[in-house]
This record gives sequence, structure tokens and C-alpha cells, in this order.
Amino acid sequence: MCDVCVTNAVKERMLSRRSFFAGAAGLAAAGAAFQAPAALAQGHQSVEDLTHELHEGFPTFFGEQQFFFDQKFNYAEHKFNLAEFRVNEHTGTHVDAPLHFSADGMSVAEIPVGNLVVPLCIVDIAARAEDDADAQVTPDDLQAWIAQHGEIPPNACVAMHSGWGRHVATDRYRNKGEDDMGHYPGFHVEAAQMLLETQAGSIGVDTLSLDHGMSPDFATHYAWLPSGRFGIECLANLDKLPATGATLVIGAPKHRGGTGGPARIIALI
Amino acid sequence: MCDVCVTNAVKERMLSRRSFFAGAAGLAAAGAAFQAPAALAQGHQSVEDLTHELHEGFPTFFGEQQFFFDQKFNYAEHKFNLAEFRVNEHTGTHVDAPLHFSADGMSVAEIPVGNLVVPLCIVDIAARAEDDADAQVTPDDLQAWIAQHGEIPPNACVAMHSGWGRHVATDRYRNKGEDDMGHYPGFHVEAAQMLLETQAGSIGVDTLSLDHGMSPDFATHYAWLPSGRFGIECLANLDKLPATGATLVIGAPKHRGGTGGPARIIALI
Repeated sequence: MCDVCVTNAVKERMLSRRSFFAGAAGLAAAGAAFQAPAALAQGHQSVEDLTHELHEGFPTFFGEQQFFFDQKFNYAEHKFNLAEFRVNEHTGTHVDAPLHFSADGMSVAEIPVGNLVVPLCIVDIAARAEDDADAQVTPDDLQAWIAQHGEIPPNACVAMHSGWGRHVATDRYRNKGEDDMGHYPGFHVEAAQMLLETQAGSIGVDTLSLDHGMSPDFATHYAWLPSGRFGIECLANLDKLPATGATLVIGAPKHRGGTGGPARIIALI
Repeated sequence: MCDVCVTNAVKERMLSRRSFFAGAAGLAAAGAAFQAPAALAQGHQSVEDLTHELHEGFPTFFGEQQFFFDQKFNYAEHKFNLAEFRVNEHTGTHVDAPLHFSADGMSVAEIPVGNLVVPLCIVDIAARAEDDADAQVTPDDLQAWIAQHGEIPPNACVAMHSGWGRHVATDRYRNKGEDDMGHYPGFHVEAAQMLLETQAGSIGVDTLSLDHGMSPDFATHYAWLPSGRFGIECLANLDKLPATGATLVIGAPKHRGGTGGPARIIALI
């Protein structure tokens, strides 16, 4: 059914209920907004949101707009608000499912839920990326992390903190050069290959791509995703977390056959 | 930019990189899919997915299709898979933000992340709903829960388990009657009003609406959402959880101005 058809069908039904809405609006509580005290998961002290707000101007790998918001009903006229949105799966803070870069890997809906609640390991290359937008996480970075913090835990998400999250509202995030390529950090394919020998279950980046922006061949995507592991791109707030000890809850979307999609990523510390 | 324009723009860029993709595909790992051992959040023993898989035939409040999946690239031709989807915010397992039924309440992006990791209280009316599809959670149900399990914890999600989750693949889920109304359980407005006097932060249902299906006026939506609290609809697997003790992680979407949206809901037990 086309967009307009759906809208009309919904409107028709809603209009027939409109007198109910107008009357029911009088029931609306008039008090101040609810402010409940924080209540955290057992064993955790705080929560951090690793998700950027998604909006129509959110920067994208290709540079074109990939999120479209369409308000269908508004409170002034209909006594309720409701929108529809259209989005490229690989937009905003989002998951790359194995299927994204494989013929028949797991879709985002098929990733076992146990793989979505995992230890978070943060590899900090922010100082290097400050001087070199093309910096990459290398096997040496991983070996240094392991030397300091111990083995990568089973199922862990190994995330690159390059400091790029703070650029999300500026052109620096995509950082398109005169060569028409993006210039931002990512995982070197050899680092991904090294992680394939560990029990890591996912890699994450605070940039637009698992591969660094100037990658000519998506080598890291092709090394990592077909193995049945997944990726997370455009992470926020990695600077607020410890290198180890946090638990990541990956609120991946669950649409059938999805190659990924915008996700709510929450860290429990 | 229109759908076709975006597609063409993306295709143009991708085709120029096609030889890279074709070459890089050779790098793909050929091994078996990754199967990491489960690793749970500190203090928790297991994880349960409270999210139904979303697909084009997922039942909706209005009865019309509300999720549209559009594959833009496929592995056979392009060496990667990528789709775009279009969705009504109130489709599948999803959040109702305060803004959904208020003039200027919090959007889904504005709900504080601390309110998304909360204690879960399950009120079981499944036996009653088995005999009466129009059953509702009443103040008596809440009082019985409190008598047995203690006060509602700060920020808790109080969820109705009506047994409706198991009907998701059949017409019984929406259960449209000859009166053209849906017939499925929900929260009675007086139960919502009673919860406004507690520190509960959200209510959840395993049906299509916070109000029961035959509600003529969305009284529960209008009582609950304008208070700054939120709702969750179409929860799955509530039968697998204890009445109290689980922590709910609400992977709400985070799009600007959203009145809600498909969410990944995960319980830590």
C-alpha cells in the first residue's frame, strides 16, 4: 500500500474516532512531568548512553540524507502525535549484522540476544587520531590493551575510541578530503584478523565505518562480518567509559532479514 | 531527496567502487559462523528477549501494514546487502513516548537513559484473559501484586502479562470483532491512575495497546503519557520471567522529535 493510501486509511479511521479523542484529551493529567529517581540494574553503579540522536541531518557514509521523518498526526489537530520514518539501515548509531557483508550470514534479527549483553573493551587511539585522521586500530594497539587489561573476554565488544564522537555535528565527522574520500579512523584489517583469533563477538567504532574512511576496499568489513560477528558504528560517549569493566547492552533492531539498523546502545558501569 | 534520487545517488557511488567490492569479497573469512559463549552482565544469570521480530505482516492497531522493507543492494550483484525501511513509529514491539499523547511531552529521544534501565514488575492476568479477551489490569490486580511482592520500585516498568504474546502470528492478536473493534487486554484507566501515585516510570503490555482493544477513548494513554511517563506495547516472552527481580533494558530508538518507535527490549534476570 502506498504512503498516501496508508495515510488516508489511517486518517479515515482516526477521524471517525475524533470526537472520542477530543473528549478523552480532557482526561490528560495536568501535573508536572514525572521525575523518578534513577534505579539501576543489579551490580551496576551508572548508565551511559552510547547513542547519538538521529535526525535528518545526521552525517552518513555516502554523504546523502538517509533518515526521513514524516509527521502524520499532530496534537493540535488530532489530539495525538504520530510519525512515520524512513531510514537506510546503516544510519546513525547502528549495527552491522553479518548479513551486511556476506551472502547468507545472520540478519540483525538472528543475532542471539545473549550476544547483545556483553563486556565492553575500549581501545583508545584518540591521541593518535588527533594528529592523524586516517589513524587505525592496529594489532599493536590490541596487544598493548591485552598487556594492560588481560585477555579479551568471551563475546566482548572491542570498541575503538578515536575521539570522533565529538565531531558528530560538524563536517569533521565525515571529513571529506579533496580526494573525495572520508578521512576518519577505523580498524585496520590486521587488527580485525587478530580479533578473529580471540573470543570477541563484535567490534565498535565512534566513526562512520568499521574501516577507516579512506579504505579502498572495505577490507575490515569483509574480514569481520562474514565470520558471524557483528559491528557497531557511530558510537557516542566512549570517552566517558573505562577501558574495561562496563557491560554493553546492544539494543539492536529486530526486523526480519535486516542487514543492521539504528540501535540504542547502553553501557552499564 | 526522493527515494529514487537517493537510490540512484547511492548506486552511482557504489558502482564506481564495484571493482573494489568484487576484489575485497575474496578476503571474506570462509570459516564457520562465530559461536561465542554467553557472557552476562555483572550480577545477572540470564537474558531474555522481550522483542517480537518485526516484519511486513506484523499485526497493527489499525490493521494496515505499517512496516515496509526495501532491499537496495544485494550480495549477488553488489557484494554487500543493504536495505532501507519505512515504519510507523507505533509498530512491532515499541515505545510510546509522552509526546505521543501530549502537546509537548518528552520525545522518545528525550527520555533520560537512566529511565531505560529499570526494575520490571509483571502483573499476570493471563488466566482471566484466557476467558475474557477484554480483560483489564485493575487496581485490585495491582494491590494483589503489591501485597505479595512489596511496593513498586522507583522507576519500575509495570507490565501486563495477559498471555497475548503467543497470539502474535494469528488473527487472535488483534482479534477484531463484528463490532469492528479489537478485543485484547490492556490497563484499566483506574490502574494507570493508581500507578501515577507510585514511583513507576512506565507501563508495558503484551498486546497492541496500553488501553484494552475495545477502549472507546484511549483513556489510559491520556491518563499516563502526559504525566511524563512512557509505555511499551507488543512485549514478548513475559511468561518466561519472574513477577519481580528482573531488570529491563529498554532499547528505545533515539530519533529527534519521535513519539516512540520500534525498540529492542531486553530483560536481565
